[in-house]
Amino acid sequence: MSTPAPDWQVEHWLNTPKPIGLADLRGKVVLALAFQMLCPGCVSHALPQAVRARQTFAEDGLAVIGLHTVFEHHEAQGSPAALAAFLHEYRIGFPVGIDAKDPDAGLPKTMQAYAMQGTPTTLLFDREGRLRLNKFGHLDDMRLGAAIASILAEAVPDATTAG
Amino acid sequence: MSTPAPDWQVEHWLNTPKPIGLADLRGKVVLALAFQMLCPGCVSHALPQAVRARQTFAEDGLAVIGLHTVFEHHEAQGSPAALAAFLHEYRIGFPVGIDAKDPDAGLPKTMQAYAMQGTPTTLLFDREGRLRLNKFGHLDDMRLGAAIASILAEAVPDATTAG
Amino acid sequence: MSTPAPDWQVEHWLNTPKPIGLADLRGKVVLALAFQMLCPGCVSHALPQAVRARQTFAEDGLAVIGLHTVFEHHEAQGSPAALAAFLHEYRIGFPVGIDAKDPDAGLPKTMQAYAMQGTPTTLLFDREGRLRLNKFGHLDDMRLGAAIASILAEAVPDATTAG
Amino acid sequence: MSTPAPDWQVEHWLNTPKPIGLADLRGKVVLALAFQMLCPGCVSHALPQAVRARQTFAEDGLAVIGLHTVFEHHEAQGSPAALAAFLHEYRIGFPVGIDAKDPDAGLPKTMQAYAMQGTPTTLLFDREGRLRLNKFGHLDDMRLGAAIASILAEAVPDATTAG
Repeated sequence: MSTPAPDWQVEHWLNTPKPIGLADLRGKVVLALAFQMLCPGCVSHALPQAVRARQTFAEDGLAVIGLHTVFEHHEAQGSPAALAAFLHEYRIGFPVGIDAKDPDAGLPKTMQAYAMQGTPTTLLFDREGRLRLNKFGHLDDMRLGAAIASILAEAVPDATTAG
Repeated sequence: MSTPAPDWQVEHWLNTPKPIGLADLRGKVVLALAFQMLCPGCVSHALPQAVRARQTFAEDGLAVIGLHTVFEHHEAQGSPAALAAFLHEYRIGFPVGIDAKDPDAGLPKTMQAYAMQGTPTTLLFDREGRLRLNKFGHLDDMRLGAAIASILAEAVPDATTAG
Repeated sequence: MSTPAPDWQVEHWLNTPKPIGLADLRGKVVLALAFQMLCPGCVSHALPQAVRARQTFAEDGLAVIGLHTVFEHHEAQGSPAALAAFLHEYRIGFPVGIDAKDPDAGLPKTMQAYAMQGTPTTLLFDREGRLRLNKFGHLDDMRLGAAIASILAEAVPDATTAG
Repeated sequence: MSTPAPDWQVEHWLNTPKPIGLADLRGKVVLALAFQMLCPGCVSHALPQAVRARQTFAEDGLAVIGLHTVFEHHEAQGSPAALAAFLHEYRIGFPVGIDAKDPDAGLPKTMQAYAMQGTPTTLLFDREGRLRLNKFGHLDDMRLGAAIASILAEAVPDATTAG
């Protein structure tokens, strides 16, 4: 199987008392949704879907993380205060990290690292931190629910033998 | 674990050249949707959901079956011709069995055998024919997708050791 | 302006103690929805829209009538009992007339008289019984609400000078 | 009838080359939607409805105006740049005015003048600039379409006799 995925690179976190690295979530399946607060498809579909995933699966099996990957309209979306207002109004309670700006590129660093094509992008990682799904655009609920459950059902090798 | 579930009791099949028993589907996960053609919740939600399940999962992993469990409006829903017209108009292509009338009771036989409370009712069976879900009413897509995938992911014991 | 439209030809009425002719509704705007109980677009969109029209406009301004214009699946849709069961399950309370079969043609008589292309078809008549809209297929709520209100707003000439 | 309504008070306009006063629209029915770009009900329902109204009625009969009435999250919603990005992403093409801040109050000036309870609020003015509807919250399409058409249908008195 593939090696663990690169970690996300976050410059500011909301909805969490401390930063969360991908490695901190080892042992859980991880749904990470890359979005922008002014992206209509994110607002109408992908974010409500992530909220449903948070409600459908237990916290000790699935972690749900948002990544605010701003690559346009920086003046409108770029501040933590704007994002905090958005998360408040849309009642999004899971941790959200602001993808780190890259002074040398138009795309922020995590978007680059995962070669994302835009927003929304849904990432799924298995219990060992390997990237298992990297999907740009619409994903239907039944398929996402099945993908999460399939990865949750995988046997995890003993810590002594894994690697 | 529980013993295999009782088979459905069907007096007429549509969309299949020959009758299908639960035992014939051993090795597959089975989604059986009990519905009535004049039940609004079946028409607007549960049947489209079963169609989505058929499209989402491979035929060799998941079988999808409809059960027409008529317990009211027999004069309107009771004939195979009426049901055939309905399946044609709603483009439902999976096999549908008409639950066998019980001359001694108001409910048809499969409804009784599974103690169904009404329509729609969603049944899920594992690869060994054991009933794993018996849900009356609304079921959301993410939860159903997860339930199917979880059961699909279960290891099946060898035929020589199963029992 | 055009002459009054031909009346509908109904062989059986439901949800009304006595037959209703178009002439009986003179003075009201009339919304007549031609549908079939096994027509998916009628069930999911046009009939709920007619119910909304009934709730939105006052009874003394707008009359709402259904016309069951069966031109296919007669064995499934053709009986008053089947239609009564359907109206009961879908909570449709406005009067519905069954369009009169024509032994010499595939289409029932009202469908022919109005040259309908299929179901659903929405007809709107003004307070003097003239046909003002004859629309096959989808009609959005804002446009229908506007059309009804526009016709309701028209001045009605005195009985002594009309014609 | 009532006297003409107070004009809106706008500190910045988007989607129009010059400011638009209520008096400039005399002779048209006017739909003015007060919204905030981070108000979920505005984004999911009221703004798409205003877009549908723009598409349904002719430009020479109905004017559609947005009013960005920011009363919370000023740091996120308060700048013209943020609003411009929002209008671009949501493809809202009608003119939008930013309601004038009141240094002495929490609510901007137009919100105060119309005693608005929150966002979304839908205002309808007749051809003579009189306020005919002031509705906070959800308004269904059929009812809004009917309200606009009813006001459009009203006879306008001659300029020489009006008043």
